[in-house]
Amino acid sequence: MNKEMILSTIAKIMVFFSSLMLIPIGVGLYYGESSLTILAFVKAMVISLAIFLPLALIKVKSKFIYIKEGFIITSISWVLMAFFGCLPMFFSRQIPSLIDAFFEMASGLTTTGASIILDLDKISNSILFWRSFSHFIGGMGVLVLALAVLPEITPSSVQAMKAEVPGPQFGKLLPKLKSSARTLYVIYIFLTLLLVLALVLAGMPLFESVNHAFATAGTGGFGMKNGSIAYYQSPAIEIILGIGMLVFGVNFNIYYMILIGKAKEALKSEELKTYLVIVALASLAIAFSIFNTYNSFATALKDGFFTVSSIMTTTGFATVDFNTWPAFAKWIVLLLMFIGGSAGSTAGGLKVSRVIISAKAALNEIKKSINPNRRVSLHYNGKALDKTTEKNILRYLVLYFLIFGICVLLVSIGVDDLMTAFTAVIATYNNVGPGLEAVGPIGSYAFFPNFNKILLSLVMIMGRLELMPILILFYPETWRMN
Amino acid sequence: MNKEMILSTIAKIMVFFSSLMLIPIGVGLYYGESSLTILAFVKAMVISLAIFLPLALIKVKSKFIYIKEGFIITSISWVLMAFFGCLPMFFSRQIPSLIDAFFEMASGLTTTGASIILDLDKISNSILFWRSFSHFIGGMGVLVLALAVLPEITPSSVQAMKAEVPGPQFGKLLPKLKSSARTLYVIYIFLTLLLVLALVLAGMPLFESVNHAFATAGTGGFGMKNGSIAYYQSPAIEIILGIGMLVFGVNFNIYYMILIGKAKEALKSEELKTYLVIVALASLAIAFSIFNTYNSFATALKDGFFTVSSIMTTTGFATVDFNTWPAFAKWIVLLLMFIGGSAGSTAGGLKVSRVIISAKAALNEIKKSINPNRRVSLHYNGKALDKTTEKNILRYLVLYFLIFGICVLLVSIGVDDLMTAFTAVIATYNNVGPGLEAVGPIGSYAFFPNFNKILLSLVMIMGRLELMPILILFYPETWRMN
Repeated sequence: MNKEMILSTIAKIMVFFSSLMLIPIGVGLYYGESSLTILAFVKAMVISLAIFLPLALIKVKSKFIYIKEGFIITSISWVLMAFFGCLPMFFSRQIPSLIDAFFEMASGLTTTGASIILDLDKISNSILFWRSFSHFIGGMGVLVLALAVLPEITPSSVQAMKAEVPGPQFGKLLPKLKSSARTLYVIYIFLTLLLVLALVLAGMPLFESVNHAFATAGTGGFGMKNGSIAYYQSPAIEIILGIGMLVFGVNFNIYYMILIGKAKEALKSEELKTYLVIVALASLAIAFSIFNTYNSFATALKDGFFTVSSIMTTTGFATVDFNTWPAFAKWIVLLLMFIGGSAGSTAGGLKVSRVIISAKAALNEIKKSINPNRRVSLHYNGKALDKTTEKNILRYLVLYFLIFGICVLLVSIGVDDLMTAFTAVIATYNNVGPGLEAVGPIGSYAFFPNFNKILLSLVMIMGRLELMPILILFYPETWRMN
Repeated sequence: MNKEMILSTIAKIMVFFSSLMLIPIGVGLYYGESSLTILAFVKAMVISLAIFLPLALIKVKSKFIYIKEGFIITSISWVLMAFFGCLPMFFSRQIPSLIDAFFEMASGLTTTGASIILDLDKISNSILFWRSFSHFIGGMGVLVLALAVLPEITPSSVQAMKAEVPGPQFGKLLPKLKSSARTLYVIYIFLTLLLVLALVLAGMPLFESVNHAFATAGTGGFGMKNGSIAYYQSPAIEIILGIGMLVFGVNFNIYYMILIGKAKEALKSEELKTYLVIVALASLAIAFSIFNTYNSFATALKDGFFTVSSIMTTTGFATVDFNTWPAFAKWIVLLLMFIGGSAGSTAGGLKVSRVIISAKAALNEIKKSINPNRRVSLHYNGKALDKTTEKNILRYLVLYFLIFGICVLLVSIGVDDLMTAFTAVIATYNNVGPGLEAVGPIGSYAFFPNFNKILLSLVMIMGRLELMPILILFYPETWRMN
């Protein structure tokens, strides 16, 4: 194991990450916030730089790392970012418990959006900005961002970057790493600015528009107001955000291909089509299910669509309390949480492509049972999928549910209600945010014992990094030297 | 498709099945029951024979069938058995609704044990016996039984029989079909008689002992008394049944091997060891979880063990209302429902062997991600497992959860509480019986709308036959001629 390279890369990422605190410091100064709050950011940044700057300067003999080391860099960086990133909230006393602050920052970076803050009106703008901004950088990946802007990070960082980009990767659309990281971020920033513009035009104040755009772009879901998006009582804002979330749940390669003039090919994507079909069907099904409590079908459909878009992209904004919906609509919401958005987007969950391939493999099992001698193959995007990819995805799915079952078991310790524990894990594992019952859209994660908060923070990071980088930390073989 | 052979085989099975009603008629006569009840059985038997006897006499040109036809025979036979088997309950007016009676019989045959009867004291002995007896024949398989006793069923019936024996099949222990079916039933009857003896010695009346032994042998769970096994207030009976259930959740091949003097080899079975370890760990974990409401740890452990044995073998007998347990203990109960008993036993669920292999495949995915170039192989029972078996099991697992998700969606229509719908499907899909909330151990399935009752009946049959035989009925290709 190349320990020097691991340490040095983590340190560089942390230096880069801490420097980003200059932005909320600027926000705090602009809004003339108390020195307690501004100094909280400064203190956190100084402590972090004091620790990581010297380590970042270590001379590294060999820059070569294996995928294992890439995973270790990624997982440790994420835990450290959540820890050092939460210090301003803790130092400013706006979140008095360090564990609560850690949970909140892990939730921000992993774009989960689960919160322990009971009253957002008491939180200062700089902290609100830092929360939303953590969605923005966590969504596309902090390591991806570091790779895009830092000159000295070497190509072997591809290992770490791979671990941070969600979903199975098909093809090699973007061979050059640094330039592709930059392209991804340029598309990302452009779409975010577009959303800010739309929100401002719909009447939302600029600062709130920027924050909501960050939270949408990262498919995070931290709100600015108690009551989330319901606060605005504006159908225009709801529709803009509903569509906005959907846009960020699409594979960014599709935007890249449209950009280079391959729109026709891009729009053939099976994942994109399935994604849109699921959104349409789920919105309709929910609208029918909740219709009897509404005056108009259009309003039921609007609320259904917003919730579907919010949940499937794993954002977690709320305009209605879906915890009060009928069991049928609630189960659709839970299923969507598991499916999640597209691979290569900022969304969490299993990803639509994995679900498509698994479902096809399962259907093949039926075909095989009708005629065992028949050769059945699995087509994806019009091409036969190789056996290894199928097997890896099936194994991933089983691992995913296995770990899920264990997480619910651990989280249910010290929780009264099973549905709360069950959906809290679904909502954090898939980086959604709100679950059902006590952790429903109008609920909060504040009441959990500290043990559960730490556990759920790790569940969020594990979900965001798609299991492996965290799991291998617990695997003894990882630490054996060779 | 060999329609003649399908029709003729189904008819023969139904003639055989209807003839079994002679036994409850005998029970009714012995207990001097009302003519309404006795005639209900006679009527049901005569109607069934009038329909199926002529069909059974059809001359069949070719006796050859493919696996597809075997599946069709199995699934249709099971639906027909549930329908004709429920007629005595309906005709006797002891279950006034035909759909309720169908649900009850499907639950009996599939060894689920979910009941719509609110007061067992009002049910006559002949009907109680027929319910328990349905567990007994459904557990080991009615087709297997028919094969064991009917002379004219041909070797091609292996296809149908295979569909009825639960779990993935490893090796070819019993090559000769008819004799192996007989051996299985001899072991089965012997163990059941042993259990009757033990229960009588523990003070349970003979008739109730026989019925409970049937319900235990088939891992069904229909009780004789309101309050299930808790009625007896006898630790001796609880321990006997606790161990009894466990015995019938073991692969019958293991008993066969012990019988032929290969005990040493038999006891090496990885599935057996894992099964016992899970029972021990789950009992202990539950005992610790519920301990604070008990006076002694021994009592908590006894109740924990009984519930674990009852749930993991998917029997469903109850001595305590686990719906009142803490979330942690409840989640263990739900996980055990999914795992189920061993392959080749009378238990339902995924089966321990499938869980072992899936878990190992998932762990291999972690190993692979640490070092992608490494060759990892999957060992089961000390031998490398071939890739096809692994893939089939993974696909089955995905299919299983996919269908599960869809079933919950359908069942949740018209149900108020999501946890009720969710656990009702878990409990019927895995042939357990009791779930949580409204369908908990002291609850009942009586309140469900008819649509849900029919659906849950199909879910039970689908679970008992391990999906395929029912699923292919909905697959258009099955009905295409070739």
